[in-house]
Amino acid sequence: MQKIRLGIVGYGNLGRGVQYAAKQNSDMEVVAVFTRRDPAGVKTVLPVKVDKYENMKNYVGKIDVMILCGGSATDLPKQSAEVASMFNIVDSFDTHAKVPEHYAALESAAKKAGTLGAMSVGWDPGLFSLARIIFGSSLPEGNTYTFWGRGVSQGHSDAIRRIEGVKDARQYTVPVESALERVRKGENPELTTREKHTRECYVVAEEGADKARIEKEIKTMPNYFADYDTTVHFISEEELLKNHGGIPHGGLVLRSGKSAAENKFLMEFSLKLDSNPEFTSSVLVAYARAVYRMHGEGKTGAVTVFDVAPKYLCPLSEEEQRKQLL
Amino acid sequence: MQKIRLGIVGYGNLGRGVQYAAKQNSDMEVVAVFTRRDPAGVKTVLPVKVDKYENMKNYVGKIDVMILCGGSATDLPKQSAEVASMFNIVDSFDTHAKVPEHYAALESAAKKAGTLGAMSVGWDPGLFSLARIIFGSSLPEGNTYTFWGRGVSQGHSDAIRRIEGVKDARQYTVPVESALERVRKGENPELTTREKHTRECYVVAEEGADKARIEKEIKTMPNYFADYDTTVHFISEEELLKNHGGIPHGGLVLRSGKSAAENKFLMEFSLKLDSNPEFTSSVLVAYARAVYRMHGEGKTGAVTVFDVAPKYLCPLSEEEQRKQLL
Repeated sequence: MQKIRLGIVGYGNLGRGVQYAAKQNSDMEVVAVFTRRDPAGVKTVLPVKVDKYENMKNYVGKIDVMILCGGSATDLPKQSAEVASMFNIVDSFDTHAKVPEHYAALESAAKKAGTLGAMSVGWDPGLFSLARIIFGSSLPEGNTYTFWGRGVSQGHSDAIRRIEGVKDARQYTVPVESALERVRKGENPELTTREKHTRECYVVAEEGADKARIEKEIKTMPNYFADYDTTVHFISEEELLKNHGGIPHGGLVLRSGKSAAENKFLMEFSLKLDSNPEFTSSVLVAYARAVYRMHGEGKTGAVTVFDVAPKYLCPLSEEEQRKQLL
Repeated sequence: MQKIRLGIVGYGNLGRGVQYAAKQNSDMEVVAVFTRRDPAGVKTVLPVKVDKYENMKNYVGKIDVMILCGGSATDLPKQSAEVASMFNIVDSFDTHAKVPEHYAALESAAKKAGTLGAMSVGWDPGLFSLARIIFGSSLPEGNTYTFWGRGVSQGHSDAIRRIEGVKDARQYTVPVESALERVRKGENPELTTREKHTRECYVVAEEGADKARIEKEIKTMPNYFADYDTTVHFISEEELLKNHGGIPHGGLVLRSGKSAAENKFLMEFSLKLDSNPEFTSSVLVAYARAVYRMHGEGKTGAVTVFDVAPKYLCPLSEEEQRKQLL
């Protein structure tokens, strides 16, 4: 069997995760990694060719799907359409406010090139989006709730690190258990930002830094922390590395609804992930399979997880799927 | 806007549920109920025309999707293909061993008639099947577990009622909490039938019946109870009606897996349903929308939940879906 030939664009945590994930799928192989850094300086977790981003065009016809592993702030807004002008792609674009814009650019580039691009793939957006649409469609009268955590927020950790006197930091987003219980009981509560999540910060201060000031700066930081109940723990660098070295995450999507005869229903989807980027990568690889197959059936343009029938994700034949999984 | 015109074939708990569910979807209307009984004797929960099963052919062009609400044992094997020769259909066929046969018959009838039929829709098969395929595709290395309950099993309740001296009975299937915990911990246990579920029976005995014999007959009944830890409670008829009058159900699909770098992941989907048939009906109605739309795009033949892109289930436009749910 001809394997699905993948390319990886950008080699950080997500790119490494895609290499690991491809290894677990016997119908996949990674042909090359593309980087804007010096390829000689990129050390991959498994042996694979590393080439310059600019050389990508030489791989047309040799790679079936490019998995874009850059960030949503600056990389993907440029790269998704650019790469889609040559290859099928999957990206994990997650800047919610800019989804329409990103979709339009990808749709235009991919349609023109006759390629297919799946955007905003991962777990949120991605699998959590699937839960939201399927739950909402199954129970039209009800409320949907998304909780994130317990997990490390990279953005919030970075925000703490930018404070003067902070050497390193890790921020955990934590769902409020009592809020979750109210949802599970079918109370359909209106929950404020503060009522849904708390923020736990583990901070390594520089020698002699003013910890009281650092704590105050964190807790009053607008957008990031001011709207939350935030706790700050000062710890040693050793403790940070030992107990907070991973990138775990997870969360829940719940829908609480009722029938016209007033019977109550609760639908719940949850994830507990030891490694956020490695799970996201694993989902990206499954959608690369879908993109490959749908493109093979003639589909071009931009799609999201909403447009992908589940059969395309699974390596089994449709007959086997019905037999083993239905 | 032209509403999606539904027909209901068979009017038991599921048919009633479809009427209730359609009421919650403003883009749907129920045109008629079809029954093999005397239509005059069918009392519907909401006002609707009731007609004979044989008269269905007079509604071609007046109904967009027929929702089949009969049983999998004898009704659907005959009706699904028969009705699909005239209309788009959705059914909840759940005899797992006969899925290939049912699929082939529906595919053939629907292709020939130019209609579209969605089979095995509901929560299991249905939403649980979606969880199994999406979870398995997202985490190729791992184990999937399905637990059912706590909920009433109609088949097992009926089996108890057939025992001499039993006036009425209700059987609950209950997941074993400790087994569930082992799965959640990532132990990936091999679980026997007995280790996954227990069976709780609430029995109303006839006046003067031999309760010890009844209990023994239940606990040793092959296929139904012999392979399970079964408890039998004799209660009064009043208590049965008061505390066990509903048809609740639910369950969980879990997948425990890991990355090639040995990081662990847990995916979990669960349902808690006050009314099993009303929830199933609500899912059938969402898939009726999908069938209507996919048929409008030219799709014919048989499909399962694996073949339906989530966008088709949701009444929102694709643009609104991306904006509100992605």
